Amino acid sequence: MSYQPINLREKLTKFQEQWSPKVIAEMNDYQFKVVKVQGDFVWHKHEDTDEVFFVIKGEITIEFRDGEVTLGEGEMFVVPKGMEHKPYAKNEAEILLVEPKGVVNTGDQISAQTAENDVWI
Amino acid sequence: MSYQPINLREKLTKFQEQWSPKVIAEMNDYQFKVVKVQGDFVWHKHEDTDEVFFVIKGEITIEFRDGEVTLGEGEMFVVPKGMEHKPYAKNEAEILLVEPKGVVNTGDQISAQTAENDVWI
Repeated sequence: MSYQPINLREKLTKFQEQWSPKVIAEMNDYQFKVVKVQGDFVWHKHEDTDEVFFVIKGEITIEFRDGEVTLGEGEMFVVPKGMEHKPYAKNEAEILLVEPKGVVNTGDQISAQTAENDVWI
Repeated sequence: MSYQPINLREKLTKFQEQWSPKVIAEMNDYQFKVVKVQGDFVWHKHEDTDEVFFVIKGEITIEFRDGEVTLGEGEMFVVPKGMEHKPYAKNEAEILLVEPKGVVNTGDQISAQTAENDVWI
């Protein structure tokens, strides 16, 4: 049988929208999602889960109420559950998110940036 | 407050042992582990969980009883729970594993390649 690798950069060539996570893999009840980001996202939190950000290309800054972290290519960060955060990217960046299936991108906030959930690519 | 990114390649400079996963991050009850691999690993399976392989550097092949998949840099694969597999790398490769906390590297097999679990770096 032929098994196929999941190539992150190839998946990222398949769409252009920003702030719209696309599912590329599922592990148990967790999903791996790629997303393009640029500019400011909305302040939000996820009450029930941690959330992993991993930078594939470019650079992002995640602001917290008491500080921030900047991630370059090949760097990751775990945002603890319940912690308010606001991602920001000066230039377009490509990110891998890891979180439980069903997590909404804007967490406890409904905004124009709230994306459809569970969209596979 | 100052928050620090987790840099995968920097973590990989901190040890030389092969087939010995080191934890670099925890998300809920899941762990992210980096590991250096070369040569043949033991055939094994994880009865209770899927397992994610993501290649940071180099190339690995994961053999299954009915086929195989080869992963290059930036490629990932989810080995389904209960599926026998044997990772192999001709040259040393650097891998990120994602799986629940407590998963033993050799799964249902105890071998000389069974590594100490939950070692952070």
